[in-house]
Amino acid sequence: MLTKLPIGRMVHGPRNLITDVPGVRVGHHTIDEGDCHTGVTVVMPPPANPYTEKLTAASVVFNGYGKTQGLVQVDELGTLETPITLTNTLNVGKVHDALVGYMIDLCAKDGFRLTTVNPVVCECNDSSVSDIGRRIVNEEAVRCAIGSAGVDFAQGAVGAGRGTICYGMKGGIGSASRQMEIDGEVFTMGVLVQSNYGASADFRAACLPEGLAECDRGSIIIVAATDLPLSARQLKRVLKRCSVGMARLGSYIGHGSGEIAVGFTTAPRAAQGSFSTIRVLDEDLMNIPFRAIGEATEEAILQSMLHANADVKLNGDKIPSLKEYLDHERPEA
Amino acid sequence: MLTKLPIGRMVHGPRNLITDVPGVRVGHHTIDEGDCHTGVTVVMPPPANPYTEKLTAASVVFNGYGKTQGLVQVDELGTLETPITLTNTLNVGKVHDALVGYMIDLCAKDGFRLTTVNPVVCECNDSSVSDIGRRIVNEEAVRCAIGSAGVDFAQGAVGAGRGTICYGMKGGIGSASRQMEIDGEVFTMGVLVQSNYGASADFRAACLPEGLAECDRGSIIIVAATDLPLSARQLKRVLKRCSVGMARLGSYIGHGSGEIAVGFTTAPRAAQGSFSTIRVLDEDLMNIPFRAIGEATEEAILQSMLHANADVKLNGDKIPSLKEYLDHERPEA
Amino acid sequence: MLTKLPIGRMVHGPRNLITDVPGVRVGHHTIDEGDCHTGVTVVMPPPANPYTEKLTAASVVFNGYGKTQGLVQVDELGTLETPITLTNTLNVGKVHDALVGYMIDLCAKDGFRLTTVNPVVCECNDSSVSDIGRRIVNEEAVRCAIGSAGVDFAQGAVGAGRGTICYGMKGGIGSASRQMEIDGEVFTMGVLVQSNYGASADFRAACLPEGLAECDRGSIIIVAATDLPLSARQLKRVLKRCSVGMARLGSYIGHGSGEIAVGFTTAPRAAQGSFSTIRVLDEDLMNIPFRAIGEATEEAILQSMLHANADVKLNGDKIPSLKEYLDHERPEA
Amino acid sequence: MLTKLPIGRMVHGPRNLITDVPGVRVGHHTIDEGDCHTGVTVVMPPPANPYTEKLTAASVVFNGYGKTQGLVQVDELGTLETPITLTNTLNVGKVHDALVGYMIDLCAKDGFRLTTVNPVVCECNDSSVSDIGRRIVNEEAVRCAIGSAGVDFAQGAVGAGRGTICYGMKGGIGSASRQMEIDGEVFTMGVLVQSNYGASADFRAACLPEGLAECDRGSIIIVAATDLPLSARQLKRVLKRCSVGMARLGSYIGHGSGEIAVGFTTAPRAAQGSFSTIRVLDEDLMNIPFRAIGEATEEAILQSMLHANADVKLNGDKIPSLKEYLDHERPEA
Repeated sequence: MLTKLPIGRMVHGPRNLITDVPGVRVGHHTIDEGDCHTGVTVVMPPPANPYTEKLTAASVVFNGYGKTQGLVQVDELGTLETPITLTNTLNVGKVHDALVGYMIDLCAKDGFRLTTVNPVVCECNDSSVSDIGRRIVNEEAVRCAIGSAGVDFAQGAVGAGRGTICYGMKGGIGSASRQMEIDGEVFTMGVLVQSNYGASADFRAACLPEGLAECDRGSIIIVAATDLPLSARQLKRVLKRCSVGMARLGSYIGHGSGEIAVGFTTAPRAAQGSFSTIRVLDEDLMNIPFRAIGEATEEAILQSMLHANADVKLNGDKIPSLKEYLDHERPEA
Repeated sequence: MLTKLPIGRMVHGPRNLITDVPGVRVGHHTIDEGDCHTGVTVVMPPPANPYTEKLTAASVVFNGYGKTQGLVQVDELGTLETPITLTNTLNVGKVHDALVGYMIDLCAKDGFRLTTVNPVVCECNDSSVSDIGRRIVNEEAVRCAIGSAGVDFAQGAVGAGRGTICYGMKGGIGSASRQMEIDGEVFTMGVLVQSNYGASADFRAACLPEGLAECDRGSIIIVAATDLPLSARQLKRVLKRCSVGMARLGSYIGHGSGEIAVGFTTAPRAAQGSFSTIRVLDEDLMNIPFRAIGEATEEAILQSMLHANADVKLNGDKIPSLKEYLDHERPEA
Repeated sequence: MLTKLPIGRMVHGPRNLITDVPGVRVGHHTIDEGDCHTGVTVVMPPPANPYTEKLTAASVVFNGYGKTQGLVQVDELGTLETPITLTNTLNVGKVHDALVGYMIDLCAKDGFRLTTVNPVVCECNDSSVSDIGRRIVNEEAVRCAIGSAGVDFAQGAVGAGRGTICYGMKGGIGSASRQMEIDGEVFTMGVLVQSNYGASADFRAACLPEGLAECDRGSIIIVAATDLPLSARQLKRVLKRCSVGMARLGSYIGHGSGEIAVGFTTAPRAAQGSFSTIRVLDEDLMNIPFRAIGEATEEAILQSMLHANADVKLNGDKIPSLKEYLDHERPEA
Repeated sequence: MLTKLPIGRMVHGPRNLITDVPGVRVGHHTIDEGDCHTGVTVVMPPPANPYTEKLTAASVVFNGYGKTQGLVQVDELGTLETPITLTNTLNVGKVHDALVGYMIDLCAKDGFRLTTVNPVVCECNDSSVSDIGRRIVNEEAVRCAIGSAGVDFAQGAVGAGRGTICYGMKGGIGSASRQMEIDGEVFTMGVLVQSNYGASADFRAACLPEGLAECDRGSIIIVAATDLPLSARQLKRVLKRCSVGMARLGSYIGHGSGEIAVGFTTAPRAAQGSFSTIRVLDEDLMNIPFRAIGEATEEAILQSMLHANADVKLNGDKIPSLKEYLDHERPEA
C-alpha cells in the first residue's frame, strides 16, 4: 500500500494522516448488517471536553446540496464545541442526538448540566450501497466510534466511508498531511475526507477503462485540522483552498454533490480577565497553509480510493477499485 | 383576547395568522411530563408531498448562535422539501430523525423509496423551564403535531413555545398576517414566531415594573409564508426585514440569541420540458412585502406574549405574562 | 443645540462624537456652486499612513442597492488601508481616484512606490438637492476634507451630508459615541452616519404633521470606530447591530436604500516574526459593544437631522428640518 | 495560432469567443506610452441601453484581495446596469467615472437624466510591466474601447491584458465558449478572462524549464455571458465553477490574487403589470452549464497565454511566452 503519494511539493507528516496534528484522534464504527453497509467516523479534537475548551473553527460550503449540521454556529462564533462526526445522509438526526447524549454525559462528569451544544454532523449519501432508510447508526455506534478513536486508523471502506463511491469507483475515508515550517517551528495541516463524488469520465489521475457508469449523486466532506495559529477568518480562507484538490482530480463540483469543509486549529488562546490573547499567522504568509491544504486534500481523496476494495451496489452492479488500475504504477514518495 | 393589534398601516388577514396564506397549516404537540414542559410545532406547506412538489424557499441568519438545520441546502437550491419544524435545542436530532421517518413514509405511499431529504428543524432553548437534557420530543410527538395541523391553531405557551421566555416574560408561539393588494390581486404575508429572546429592560412596547430579571440566553425563530410570486433571491431580501419587527420591540440582537428566519412562497412554477416558467414581483415593488413582513413579525412576537400565561421556571422563579400589564390598555384594531 | 440625547442606557463619550475614539479625526469639504450642493466627508483612522499600519476592519451590507467600494477586500482580509470617504453616488469614481492619488503621495513621502491600495468610498444619492451628474467632488475637494480633519467637526448639512434627506426631512452627517467599561478600562464606540433614508410617515421619533412627501430613494452609510480589541469576525458581528438603531427610528430597510456599515478598531496588534499577537474581547461579553453601537447609531441619525436646517430641492420643494418640530421638546441628557 | 484547444468534452462555439453569445461584443483600448503599458477592455451586453434593459447578473468572489467595483448591488438585485469594464488596479476610479459619464450620455440620448447607476469595474495589477501610478486610462480610453467593440476582438497582450502576467509567463485577455444543447435549442456559455495569476512552478499544462521566477502578486477576472435562461441564484452557482478551470491549470488561489467572476444571461424576461415572467433551467440540469463554464474558463486562460508574446518588465526582466514552449506540441481540436 502506498502510504505517501507524490502530490505537490511539501513534506508529508510522519503518518501522513490528520492525526499528525498533535492531539487529534480518529475513530470509526462500521456496520455490515443485512442490506446496511454504512457507519460513522469521528474526528476528535485534542481537548478532553471540547465544549469547555472551545477551539477556533470555520467552515466552507462549496456546493450546498447537503445536510451537514452545525455550520450556522461555527460560522457565527468561529468555535467548535463537539467532535466532528461523519455518517450517511438519513442518519444525521440520530447521530446528532447521539452526540448530544455523549456531550451531556461528558459535561456531567465535569460536574455541570449541559443545556446547549452545537453538534457538528456531516454526511454523504451511500444509498446505492446501503439501505439508507433504516437509519441504523445509533447512539451505541457513535459511542463505539468515539471509544475506538486513536492516532492510527483505517482508511478506505470503513466508518462513514463504508458505502461511498468516488469517480465511479469505491471511495471511503482517506487522509493525508503536510508539514509547514515557519520561523523554525514545524506545524502540520491534516485532512480527512469522506469521498463520494465525481463521475468516472472526469477522473484525471489515471487512465481508466471506458464504460464505467457515471455517478449522479454524491458529496464530499473534508475535515481539516492544524496546529498553525490562525484566526477563524484565516481558517475559512484556508478551507476555501480544498476546492483546488478536488478540481485537480477532475470534478466539476456537480449539482447533486454536497461539498463541504469544516476545520479547526488547536493553537491555544490565553484568557486574561475579559480578554483573550491569540496568536495568528501574518496574512502575507497565508500561501503556506493554502498550498498545504490543497495538496493534502488531493492526496486524501486518492488515499480514500486507494485503500478501498472493489464492492457491489444493492442492485448488484460492481463498483471497481482504483487499486485495480494503479497498483503497479506509482512509486513510493 | 386581542386578535389584531394596531401595528403598522397594512390590512390584517382575516385570521391574522400564517394560515391566511392559502394551503398553509400549523400543528402543535405540547408536552408536560415531570420536569419537561416543551413540545414541537410544525408549519405545513400546501403540497401533499413537499418533497415532490418543492416550493421556493430562503433563509436568513441574523445571529448564528443557534442549531437550526437544513439552511445549507435551502440557501443553495432555494427550495423546501419538508414541513418546517420547531422544537427545543437539544431535541433537534430527534425531531430531524422523526421528520426523515415521516417523509420516507409519505414517499412510500406515493410509490417511491426516498433516499435523500433535507429536514428543516428550528429551535429555541427552553432549559430554564424544561428538563432539556431528556430530549423527550420523539417521533410520535412529531407525528401528533403533523396530524393535528390545521388552519386554526393555539398561540402562546404551546408546542415549541411551551417553555420559551421573551423579554423576561412568558413567550411562545405567535402569529400574524398582512394583506398586499397588487394589480387587483390580494396576496398574504404570514408570520409565525417562536419567541425566546430579549431582556425585559429593553422591551419597548409597554411600561413594565422594574426589577424583572434579565434573560441571558435566547433565540427567536421566524417562519414566513406567502403566496406572493417571488424568486428565492427576492424572498431572502424579504426575510431580512424581519429584523425590523424585532428591533422595534427593543432587542439588540443579543450575542446568545440565535435569530433565524425561514420562509417559502406557495406561488406556482410551471414546468415545460427542461425549463420552468416562474412569475416574480417587479423589484421596484419590493417595499410592499418588506413592510408586510416587518409589521407581521412585530405583531407575531407581541401575540406570542399576549397569548401566554404567567409561568414558573424549574428553579421556582416566576415568569410574568405581558397580559398582566396590558390587558386593559390596547383597543381592538 | 442638544449635544447628548437620552437614547439608551450607556454613558456618552465626552464629545459624543466618533472622534471620542482616540486618534480618529473627521473632515468635510462642502460644495455650494450653482446647482451643486454636495461634498465629501473623511473619517481618518489614527495611523499616519493607514496602508503601512493596517487596522482591523469589517463591513456589513444591510441592503445592497448601493455603490460603496472597497468592501470585497475589507471582508477578505479584515483590514483597512485608507481613510474612509463618503460622497454622493455619481462621484464615487472621482473620489476613489483622488484617494489613490493621496495614498500614492503619502507613501512616496514614506519612501516607497505604492502599486496597489484598496480605497473605501461610500455614498448616498443627493440628486434631488444637487446636480449629481456634474461629479464636482474632485481631488482638490478630497484633499481639502483630509486637510481639515480634526476631532471637532460640524454635523448636519455639511460634507457628504450637504444634500441628503432623511425621513422626508433634511438629513446629513451625524455622530454619537458610547463608553464601555470593561475590567476597569474605558473603551469607546463611535459612530458617524450619512443619513439619506426612510419615509416621513414611518418616522417614530416624533409627531410630525401629515402630508410630508415620502422619500423613495435613499441610503445610509454608517462608519463605526472603536478602540475595543475585537477580531474582524467580532467587529462584523458588532456592525450588524447598526440595524437596530435604524429600525428603532421607523425604517423598513427600503428596497431603494443602500444601507451599509464599515468599521475599524484601533486596538493594536503586536508583530513578532511571522506571527502577530492580538487581543480580543471574550465572546460572551459581546453584548456590550452590541448595545453601544445600537444606541450610538440611533442617536447619530437623530443628530444628523437635529443639526440640519430646512432646505429646498432642485425642483423647489421644501425640505423641513426635524428641529422645527422638536426644538423645545427634548431635555439635555 | 490554435483557435480551439482540446479541453473538455463539450462542443466549442463557432468563434470560440464570448461573443458567440448573441449580441455580446468586446472592445479594447491599449496604451503604450512611456512606461505605461496598460489598457481597458469592455464586455458589452446586448441591450443598447443596459440601464433601461437590465439583464440578470451575478458575481462570485473566490479570493477578495481585489478592488473590483459594483458587486454589492449585483449581488443584491441580481442585475447588470452597465457594460463590464476591466482595467488595472489603480485606474479603477477613473474608469468608474468614465463609465458614469458614458451612461449619463447614453441616457440623455434616450431622453432622461440619469441620477444613479452601478458601474462594474474589474481590475488586475500590472505594475511590474506598467507605471500603474499614472492612472492613464481616462474617459477617452474607455470611449475608444466601447466604440471599437465588436464580435471579433484580439486576445493576448491587449486592452486590460496589456501588462498582465500569468504563471510567470505573459498573460492577457483570453476567451473561449462552449455550446449546450437542451430540448433541441442550442445555448452558448462564453468566457473572457484577464489573466494575471499563478506561479510558474505550479503550472500544470506544460513542461516548463526550471528557474522561472515565481509571481507573487496577481489576480484573475472572469467575465461570463450566456443566453441560457437562469435565475440570478442559478447564475451564481454556475460562476462558482470557474474555480475548476483555474485549479486545473495549477493555481492554489494565492493570497495576493484577487479572483473574481462576474456574469450575465441575455435570456429575456417578460414584464406584465407588476410582475415579470422568467424562464429558468431545471435545477437538475445545472451540470450542463457547470461543465461548460469550467471548460471554457480553463481554455480561456490558456488562450490568453497562447496569444501573448514574450515581453519585458519595467525592471528589465524577461517575461516568456507560453508559445515558446508549446507552439509545435498541441494539435488543432
